[in-house]
Amino acid sequence: MKEAVIRELERIVGRDNVTRRKEELMGHGYDATLKEYQPEIVVLPKSTDEVASILKLANREKVPVISRGAGTNLSGGTVALTGGIVLSMTKMNRILEIDTKNAVAVVEPGVVNADLQEVLEPTGYYFRPDPASMKACTMGGNVAECSGGPRCLKYGVTRDYVRGLEVVLASGEVIQTGSKNKRAADGLDLTKLLVGSEGTLGVFTKIILEISPISESKKTMLCVFGSIDDASKTVAHIIGSGIIPTTLELMDNLLINCAEDHTGVGLPRDAAAILLIEVDGYLEDLSDQVKTIGQICESNNVKDFTIATSADQVNKLWLARRTVIGALARKRPSYSMQDVTVPRSKMPSMVAEVVQVSKKYDLPIGVLAHAGDGNLHPLVLFDERDKEEVDKVHHAEIDICKSALELGGTLSGEHGIGTLKRPYLDLEFSQDAIDLMKGIKRVFDPNNILNPGKIVEVDAS
Amino acid sequence: MKEAVIRELERIVGRDNVTRRKEELMGHGYDATLKEYQPEIVVLPKSTDEVASILKLANREKVPVISRGAGTNLSGGTVALTGGIVLSMTKMNRILEIDTKNAVAVVEPGVVNADLQEVLEPTGYYFRPDPASMKACTMGGNVAECSGGPRCLKYGVTRDYVRGLEVVLASGEVIQTGSKNKRAADGLDLTKLLVGSEGTLGVFTKIILEISPISESKKTMLCVFGSIDDASKTVAHIIGSGIIPTTLELMDNLLINCAEDHTGVGLPRDAAAILLIEVDGYLEDLSDQVKTIGQICESNNVKDFTIATSADQVNKLWLARRTVIGALARKRPSYSMQDVTVPRSKMPSMVAEVVQVSKKYDLPIGVLAHAGDGNLHPLVLFDERDKEEVDKVHHAEIDICKSALELGGTLSGEHGIGTLKRPYLDLEFSQDAIDLMKGIKRVFDPNNILNPGKIVEVDAS
Repeated sequence: MKEAVIRELERIVGRDNVTRRKEELMGHGYDATLKEYQPEIVVLPKSTDEVASILKLANREKVPVISRGAGTNLSGGTVALTGGIVLSMTKMNRILEIDTKNAVAVVEPGVVNADLQEVLEPTGYYFRPDPASMKACTMGGNVAECSGGPRCLKYGVTRDYVRGLEVVLASGEVIQTGSKNKRAADGLDLTKLLVGSEGTLGVFTKIILEISPISESKKTMLCVFGSIDDASKTVAHIIGSGIIPTTLELMDNLLINCAEDHTGVGLPRDAAAILLIEVDGYLEDLSDQVKTIGQICESNNVKDFTIATSADQVNKLWLARRTVIGALARKRPSYSMQDVTVPRSKMPSMVAEVVQVSKKYDLPIGVLAHAGDGNLHPLVLFDERDKEEVDKVHHAEIDICKSALELGGTLSGEHGIGTLKRPYLDLEFSQDAIDLMKGIKRVFDPNNILNPGKIVEVDAS
Repeated sequence: MKEAVIRELERIVGRDNVTRRKEELMGHGYDATLKEYQPEIVVLPKSTDEVASILKLANREKVPVISRGAGTNLSGGTVALTGGIVLSMTKMNRILEIDTKNAVAVVEPGVVNADLQEVLEPTGYYFRPDPASMKACTMGGNVAECSGGPRCLKYGVTRDYVRGLEVVLASGEVIQTGSKNKRAADGLDLTKLLVGSEGTLGVFTKIILEISPISESKKTMLCVFGSIDDASKTVAHIIGSGIIPTTLELMDNLLINCAEDHTGVGLPRDAAAILLIEVDGYLEDLSDQVKTIGQICESNNVKDFTIATSADQVNKLWLARRTVIGALARKRPSYSMQDVTVPRSKMPSMVAEVVQVSKKYDLPIGVLAHAGDGNLHPLVLFDERDKEEVDKVHHAEIDICKSALELGGTLSGEHGIGTLKRPYLDLEFSQDAIDLMKGIKRVFDPNNILNPGKIVEVDAS
């Protein structure tokens, strides 16, 4: 990078907010997929104006700009494939407005999901999407990746809760999309297009989020199964019955034991699978729903069906679920987390496919799933230092993606395409559809400076 | 249009499915806004392949193609501004699949909304968006316009219920976007971009819709007010209390009397305004919600608060609401229906603005609103033959749009931009945002053959 560009960046954000220290470049050069591509410089803007000036400069000089929050990305979306500037949005972390009358919160992109939830709680409102990394991940990242989370089963994903955006375009121009209004049919929907665009179309500087009244009550159930097939059939039956639980999470034996090693909350170590089910709503309805769910579990050979009776018990179960990924390190040094979705009626078939893939390649694969949505996170465990094993992992990944697509599924439910899934995009979409994505990318970013190489590969026009 | 093109169209769809009869051109040359621009020919395809062949031909010959369902459009979206082909999708009206296990229905674009509801009913599922024209309007149009309806207050608009599309592009190529899956983060979201694109980006040939279990129970309330301000304040208070009714509809005195003239269902003719409120869910909850709503109405000087006690009573109330637009013809020969949305806390201010505009131009304006969403349909009544009055109507429209935008609102809640709102688009969006919409249009339709002149005006590239 030219020295003049670096001087100009320092002038825009102040010298304290620019760094080229080796450890900072390294720290901003990987995400939760452990892919590593370091930027040449890390810049921390504090305002929309600063972001606009940075992008104007980068566009003129054709320098890549990778906007980034907490770096919890799971598809290699925030790594600096071709160097350039990492735009760390962590200093733009103000909650600008909470407007319960219109059920919206206006936030800067660096606000951490859990921090927003905490500020909202006394108002009686909450933000529905709850990615597992919610204690660290930022709203800018949530919007850029269209994050999900357990309770998105009932309530929908981030896309459904973004009403408007302030966006800095590659040119440095600032646009507003959407508004505080939920009902709008006012031209091409730039807001929904930008959600899930993984930093490739613009940099968000303000986000208008829909917030929702906290439900009166909830009930949490732990259902223990002797076979994973029984557990996944139970999922299909519950959804087929017309009940939509808030969450319907599945963990197999491998993950149960990892979670139990890590947390000791008392999960059943010999279970083939557990379902963690929550329903919410008005207190009176819940007993009916719990009863129906219990009956469906019985008819699918449930070994044990427990309704949590204290907040402490509920918190322990969710602690085990939310921390299980980290706990995998006890088993093998590396893991590759998949993120396929299949129509939920195909859950039992997809789980069977994963078991087959595990056998075929002789690789341990843990099954974790937002099962009610058909969103599976098979976790392939391996050792990154063993090149032969790494090769097998790649083959297993491709097999899992192909199986999901054959069952009518998608490559990604909530982690995005990023770097990891880009080579497989043509398994899901025709060349004509991919060409439309590339065309849109060129309209927004003709010089291909914004997070280049993610989702689709384009040349500067 | 060249004779050779006409012969080719006849060859593609058969001579019976092509017409140039004057009355057919006239019948396909206007929509519910009464703007009139006739096509040169009307073509009725029966399959995706036929649509693909037609578009390939039209693209080669640079002939405009306006896809059209029932023509209930309220923004001049389906009129043939520059002639060409009207592609009537009414023969592609099959419900292809109802899959309750995955909560989806797959339909062709010509399926009428109410017909889908009727077929769904025995399965225990329904499609949530319910435009007032649901007995006539087609799903293709619903998706193209991102239609709303009364119960979209609680459940969201058409955009929220489209999971995937089969789309014929301007080039004649066919793409699939989305899938049966609800949770997906798989590249730029072409599905959500196409929803609300008003026929300017592609022609839908299959639509994957999310369907939902029918609620156990509902309660319908009629609330009568002595002032429209009390009614609109009640709306803001109900929503502010955290209750989200299924519907929260407002009608002012002018509309009450039109509806009563037309239906004679017993609406209170001397009321300044009524609210028609429905809540749905499990039976046990409803009494609590109804009680709270009753208390809020009391505190805002409600004159009468009635809970409907029979299905017949409920049906009559909705009949009055759903047919009121047609009933306006009794008052004046023409009406212009506005479709602005404001943040719901601004409802009282926006209603006051409309009253002001009515006084300023000495024009009767009826206020109809999906009030819970802040989506107002002020109905300006006039006589089209009176040129001076028509001029006043245009000024009134602009005033209403400007007021809504000043209050943080949008130009359209559910009717789209079409022809009518296009001149005002730059009041809501900056030139940079409009340029992005134009750029996207050019990517999808480089020769500008698809519904040209709607939303944005572009030149062929």
